[in-house]
Amino acid sequence: MSETANKSAFVVDTSHSPNGVWKPVSVADVTLTDSFWEPILRRNREQTIPSQWQQCEETGRIDNFRRASGKKDLPFQGIFFNDSDVYKWAEAAAFSLAAHPDPTLDRLLDDVIQEIADAQGPDGYLNTYFVFEREKERFTNLKDMHELYCAGHLFQAAVAHHRATGKTTLLEIATRLADCLDRTFGPGIRSGTCGHEEAEMGLVELYRVTGEVRYLSLAQFMVEQRGQQSGLFGNSKYHQDHLPFREQRDFVGHAVRHLYLACGATDITLERPESGYSEALNGLWKSLTQRRMYVTGGAGSRWEGEAFGEDYELPNDRAYTETCAAIGSVMWNWRMLLMTGEAKYADLMETTLYNAVLPGLSLDGTHYFYQNPLADRGQHRRQKWFGCACCPPNVARLLASLSGYFCTVAKDKVGVHLYARSSADLTLPDGQPFAFDTETDYPWEARMRFTIRQAPERPIQFCLRTPWWAESVEFTVNGLQDTQAEIEGDYLILNRVWLPGDVVTLDLGMTTQRVESHPHILGNRGRVALQRGPLIYCIEQADHPTSDVWDIALPESEPLVPEFQPDLLGGVTVLKATGIASDATEWDGALYAPYVGHSEMETHSVPLVAIPYFAWANRDAGPMQVWIPSVPAAE
Amino acid sequence: MSETANKSAFVVDTSHSPNGVWKPVSVADVTLTDSFWEPILRRNREQTIPSQWQQCEETGRIDNFRRASGKKDLPFQGIFFNDSDVYKWAEAAAFSLAAHPDPTLDRLLDDVIQEIADAQGPDGYLNTYFVFEREKERFTNLKDMHELYCAGHLFQAAVAHHRATGKTTLLEIATRLADCLDRTFGPGIRSGTCGHEEAEMGLVELYRVTGEVRYLSLAQFMVEQRGQQSGLFGNSKYHQDHLPFREQRDFVGHAVRHLYLACGATDITLERPESGYSEALNGLWKSLTQRRMYVTGGAGSRWEGEAFGEDYELPNDRAYTETCAAIGSVMWNWRMLLMTGEAKYADLMETTLYNAVLPGLSLDGTHYFYQNPLADRGQHRRQKWFGCACCPPNVARLLASLSGYFCTVAKDKVGVHLYARSSADLTLPDGQPFAFDTETDYPWEARMRFTIRQAPERPIQFCLRTPWWAESVEFTVNGLQDTQAEIEGDYLILNRVWLPGDVVTLDLGMTTQRVESHPHILGNRGRVALQRGPLIYCIEQADHPTSDVWDIALPESEPLVPEFQPDLLGGVTVLKATGIASDATEWDGALYAPYVGHSEMETHSVPLVAIPYFAWANRDAGPMQVWIPSVPAAE
Repeated sequence: MSETANKSAFVVDTSHSPNGVWKPVSVADVTLTDSFWEPILRRNREQTIPSQWQQCEETGRIDNFRRASGKKDLPFQGIFFNDSDVYKWAEAAAFSLAAHPDPTLDRLLDDVIQEIADAQGPDGYLNTYFVFEREKERFTNLKDMHELYCAGHLFQAAVAHHRATGKTTLLEIATRLADCLDRTFGPGIRSGTCGHEEAEMGLVELYRVTGEVRYLSLAQFMVEQRGQQSGLFGNSKYHQDHLPFREQRDFVGHAVRHLYLACGATDITLERPESGYSEALNGLWKSLTQRRMYVTGGAGSRWEGEAFGEDYELPNDRAYTETCAAIGSVMWNWRMLLMTGEAKYADLMETTLYNAVLPGLSLDGTHYFYQNPLADRGQHRRQKWFGCACCPPNVARLLASLSGYFCTVAKDKVGVHLYARSSADLTLPDGQPFAFDTETDYPWEARMRFTIRQAPERPIQFCLRTPWWAESVEFTVNGLQDTQAEIEGDYLILNRVWLPGDVVTLDLGMTTQRVESHPHILGNRGRVALQRGPLIYCIEQADHPTSDVWDIALPESEPLVPEFQPDLLGGVTVLKATGIASDATEWDGALYAPYVGHSEMETHSVPLVAIPYFAWANRDAGPMQVWIPSVPAAE
Repeated sequence: MSETANKSAFVVDTSHSPNGVWKPVSVADVTLTDSFWEPILRRNREQTIPSQWQQCEETGRIDNFRRASGKKDLPFQGIFFNDSDVYKWAEAAAFSLAAHPDPTLDRLLDDVIQEIADAQGPDGYLNTYFVFEREKERFTNLKDMHELYCAGHLFQAAVAHHRATGKTTLLEIATRLADCLDRTFGPGIRSGTCGHEEAEMGLVELYRVTGEVRYLSLAQFMVEQRGQQSGLFGNSKYHQDHLPFREQRDFVGHAVRHLYLACGATDITLERPESGYSEALNGLWKSLTQRRMYVTGGAGSRWEGEAFGEDYELPNDRAYTETCAAIGSVMWNWRMLLMTGEAKYADLMETTLYNAVLPGLSLDGTHYFYQNPLADRGQHRRQKWFGCACCPPNVARLLASLSGYFCTVAKDKVGVHLYARSSADLTLPDGQPFAFDTETDYPWEARMRFTIRQAPERPIQFCLRTPWWAESVEFTVNGLQDTQAEIEGDYLILNRVWLPGDVVTLDLGMTTQRVESHPHILGNRGRVALQRGPLIYCIEQADHPTSDVWDIALPESEPLVPEFQPDLLGGVTVLKATGIASDATEWDGALYAPYVGHSEMETHSVPLVAIPYFAWANRDAGPMQVWIPSVPAAE
């Protein structure tokens, strides 16, 4: 592995994009040393990635490649899109290698790549489901069979592998398949795109690595295929085929698909500003954040069709909020941030990471949620794997590349979007280094201390995101107020010639907040969610031995006291208060009853302990809820 | 048509059941003359039944029979279980003929029966999907293909036709098919039952008509097939295959299926008390009424799988509450009432009829709801028909037989379970007549006046149900208090030798009530439903020009004033009050915001008008909701 390779392990490479405000840094450029993310990322390397490889082996996902290459005489195993899980695992392994060289994993990945290579047809076609007796079915059912979706995941894995290791083994497989697709589909050749979006963003990244404009054009062709009068997919909302992309303003249908489509369209817009997708992208972002998103950042409320619901249709107990949809949202907001430089995308990326992606993974790193309800009776528990196992390797690849999402660079500019104790060794677009260390207990505290280690001898704008939840923004440079500082678009911008040893402090004023929701979210009426910094909290039965947590309310004026508990759930800050509990068992079999008014309920005080939502369901099973009834202050 | 035939047009004939408290009366025995049901039933005869026959013709449902008999060379049209819609239509037509002879409909039904007869195989097999090239697939996929379900609907139609008209044409088809099934399935022959329950209750009724014990035994065999270790349907809850029926205590999985299973098991228990299903039936009823039912009586909250949710999982905007499930509940509660004589079953039958079945049909009688949400933004509208058209003919057959649900008889006893202005000409089990007229404006008022027309010369218990919502029960006999009267198990029992001209008055004390729900129904927190007599109310946009009805709250102490409006929605009593409106548009794009507390919301007074829920969505599309926020009284 060469140093050069590591330095280019970007998550979405906008280095040469005409329409990008920010350029990414390599996942190897930021080393997390904190007590929040670092243990999770280490666990991802040490537990999650190895155990997922094992799952891929045990469930026949890798054997499917051996079957396709004729090495094993087996029936196809599992679901027709299982190749994609192997590709996502490979992407996770590749990003992991970028920052954490590991000869064993490197060799294992090479072996898996060899199995993939051997399964590829002479014409470049690659999908282990469509071989032998099913070869004649290739490209006959793009709507349902996820053929191009699988290809897209191969492209992303190949790009990551090449950027992380400098090797071309997987990249060559990917370009051969991309060439096969390019020969098959396109204007004047054949219409068609995949029922499940994903190939679009993979193709744009493949273009960025190879310079092959054909791949970019094919990605754009795929986006343009949707919502045409010909109705490739019956103009169904489920498939985002109801409107041409540039006319779309609402997230609809299958949530992961629509978010992946938004990723692809943003990637295209980064390269081709003239594509005309910007208004749709802005409209969709409003649809998500103003009407169709949980307070956790989770998206896609419906179990039926794993889909977005109508505006404000955000039930808590039946929240679907697939982990993959949250990951899709992070990927999309990252692209929007790179394109526009607007802090709101980093804000949402952070909210979603902590509160919608992270709950998908157990604290032991080997159990997963597919759905992430915001209220539960204790029946929803993480599983070791799924028949449809899209989420586990999706979590793994995101975590393996997480350090790539913290910082960006631009001409004479460094952006810091996520915070954690870390060391950053960045390279500015002109090749000059910019290095700094971050000291903080984020996300438990929002006091930061940045120490510059290396910087060019010219003014550099050091841009620090001020999150939407920050109650105040206090900062010093070398112990003094910086009168030159500006706060612009939710970034604190410190512009100066930085010297090694320069120290910036930043305090974002982290407080505990009650959040209420739009009144048309029917299930949230009279309830509040608790938030501290980037974290959404919940109350879980394990902390409440005497009352059902579904029966606990929070008085309006009751203070919420944060308290760090090092031995709880790997070390978390809990919120403590005195709640008001009633006892639903007093209903004694009644489901409906004549209304007796607010004042008639018998209640008693009870200690209330809220934990970060991401950590729920890691102890004994029991009720949980995020939206807690808010009641008038006790008299 | 003979008088004898009409007099036996029972809905579930328990005349000879060893385990039945009540015996049914013919649908021809009670003639509704009221302004609520009578116009609906007339519309059912004049609009609904004719238009549904037309739909069956236009959609190829009847042509499928002509195809099967070789009369038409067509491909099979529609869904594989479409035969059942024709059978349900035939059942509706038959019941209609019982009380309302109509030579045109009689001839049309005869013609359809001829098409059915011609499609039957020489071995008695009958299902138009499994003919020609699919003949070899018969009985190969009982789980999914609804083969026995279709048979069950034929049995019900045949029994109704025979009871209503005395003819045996459809009955002979049914017994030939039942014999075919009996030869195919049974202990020592072949295991198996249908993935969709329905045949069970059809077979028991066929047994009641023919006396063939084999049919009853086959029905019981079918019930017993479920929930065995062999796992016919993978022990899935969706198919009620998770537990043997006698161990079931919770409604789970597909709602219509489980309710139909309960109907079949009750029918079997009526005939064979020793079957051991009683505890399960009681447990299931508790599951429904104490934990898994909407305030409307609607059942099956989940869109996904058209299924029951967990306890208290009863979302309003995404309520599935299929019209067929409500009908299944009415059919089941009717059987439970016949078996036990307990008023609670009649109470629920009434609630469900008015508030969960009736909303499924438009005021013009030709548009249908499949799902019945309790809150909506105006997008859910009734349709003329559905690809899967189970609900429309299900509504038609229930309405056509509705007069059969009002009264029952037993030795020296007459039960009145539903109320409407009507004439009843009943026959007691010993053949003696008992006739009375009912004067009332039910369901708008609960004052009743019963005038006896004919009675035997011995004491007869005249049993009048006192609904659960009755605030008081006041009554007179011939203008005087009857000191012999008892109220027993929610029936007012007046026992005497009745003379023609005797007059009973009954006032049930109908008031408007606010209802609240168990606190674990998350979306109902801080909300009330409005009820007056048997009717659940809602607020609909059409009556509220200035405020979104989702933004209107009802102060706790605000009086609700009933007012009959003869020109509104066919004549309904509305409830009027002064509501408190806020304006959600003030959120201006925000979905979540720091909590400002109850007192900060800007509100203004607004006239609130609630209409009966069954009548919603018959005017301009707009928001609606049943559960209205309840706020402290204005100061």
